[in-house]
Amino acid sequence: MSAVVGEGGWLAVVGTGPGDSAWMTPETSAVIAAATDLVGYERYVERVADSGQRRHVSDNREETARAAHALDLAASGARVAVISGGDPGIFAMAAAVWETLERADHERWAAVEIRVTPAVSAIQAVAARAGAPLGNDFCVISLSDNLKPWAVIERRVRLAAEADFALAFYNPISRARPWQLGAAIEAVAAHRAPATPVVLGTAVGRADEALTITDLARFDPAAADMRTLVIVGASTTRVIAAADGRPRVYTPRLYPADY
Amino acid sequence: MSAVVGEGGWLAVVGTGPGDSAWMTPETSAVIAAATDLVGYERYVERVADSGQRRHVSDNREETARAAHALDLAASGARVAVISGGDPGIFAMAAAVWETLERADHERWAAVEIRVTPAVSAIQAVAARAGAPLGNDFCVISLSDNLKPWAVIERRVRLAAEADFALAFYNPISRARPWQLGAAIEAVAAHRAPATPVVLGTAVGRADEALTITDLARFDPAAADMRTLVIVGASTTRVIAAADGRPRVYTPRLYPADY
Repeated sequence: MSAVVGEGGWLAVVGTGPGDSAWMTPETSAVIAAATDLVGYERYVERVADSGQRRHVSDNREETARAAHALDLAASGARVAVISGGDPGIFAMAAAVWETLERADHERWAAVEIRVTPAVSAIQAVAARAGAPLGNDFCVISLSDNLKPWAVIERRVRLAAEADFALAFYNPISRARPWQLGAAIEAVAAHRAPATPVVLGTAVGRADEALTITDLARFDPAAADMRTLVIVGASTTRVIAAADGRPRVYTPRLYPADY
Repeated sequence: MSAVVGEGGWLAVVGTGPGDSAWMTPETSAVIAAATDLVGYERYVERVADSGQRRHVSDNREETARAAHALDLAASGARVAVISGGDPGIFAMAAAVWETLERADHERWAAVEIRVTPAVSAIQAVAARAGAPLGNDFCVISLSDNLKPWAVIERRVRLAAEADFALAFYNPISRARPWQLGAAIEAVAAHRAPATPVVLGTAVGRADEALTITDLARFDPAAADMRTLVIVGASTTRVIAAADGRPRVYTPRLYPADY
């Protein structure tokens, strides 16, 4: 951090990247090393090697309380790293911190210096494992309707499918949201061929990583869980053989003459 | 690399991340260190510290020739790192390598083990600097019509605007493509309020980094150049004050009751 304010406190929103620690940037490691306090969802904070910081862990759903707690700590002089799992700027804690700051409008938080550092997002890790499905225009959509109406999500999926984007789905499914992924796939299938490639990447970068390449016709929502990201190809997306025997999915840069 | 093939050669498509070397992942550094040959656009290869590898640099437009050269080197036993600037999976060399492999269908490339490693993309760095404009659903579109028809791009921008995605534009402008950015902004403005925030991030992570926060009404394409990325907010995207005096742009997770 180039400058600190108040009584020396600051708040940095960082991301570990997906599972594998080889994906955490040197900047993120340095910010965490400079922090006195780590705040985050238990599973993400656990990824950070213990170097003596105070740890404040909470459950997955409590982003607003977590952001408020982090702002309080920083306002009282702590150097706080708020830990997200992938990129903190994509469906993660960066927006939650700004949102909490603006909604509460607390005088005591006004002087807290806040910084966001970029990180590798899980969807990029899944894309890299799969080949290059996001090599051309794509959309990124969270299928969670906890904080936005399902009608908004459904409309976005439909228009993105109509526009022939490749689609990346975060938060595709959970016990409380069992049908949304099936509905989203159905909305895409109305605009795209049954053979359109679909990639499911689960726990990518972790020991139990799994990657499945299937297509719209054979897609089964039951193959996804909370740790899965789903990529649906554009009409131009292709599956090819690779030397290691594993097929790859990529979206070409060049468009066919008859497109 | 877990396994090598042929005469010990392999091809890894990696990304340095945007400008700042603190954004290059340890995995990417390790792959580059294990390589015998670096292949890429001159400006990106220059970012890699010299550790004795053979360097094969080329101009920005020559992705196909570069991919073929890298495949030839790997087939002849070299350990080749193809260097992209941001994330190799997003409008970069990963798709170019798979595309070249499939189109040429050369027997001599069939045994080359190919791997893609994820990296921080420039748009994520711009988003982090700006606050969290991509904190909710967003689309990523290259405005370059060198390899795809402008009608496809224009249609995608229009439908993404209609769906109220935040929009991230790669390759917004160049000497050969002077009007496309203005046309894209106009297409968005047809669906969104004049006060919608727009972020321009130029050379982010480099010494001459510049970040501009403006809005649709005041947007001037001349403020962008080849090294600029542009983010246009959704209807919910907000600008707020931050302690360091610089405004921030973020897209909330939570939707307003009257949305």
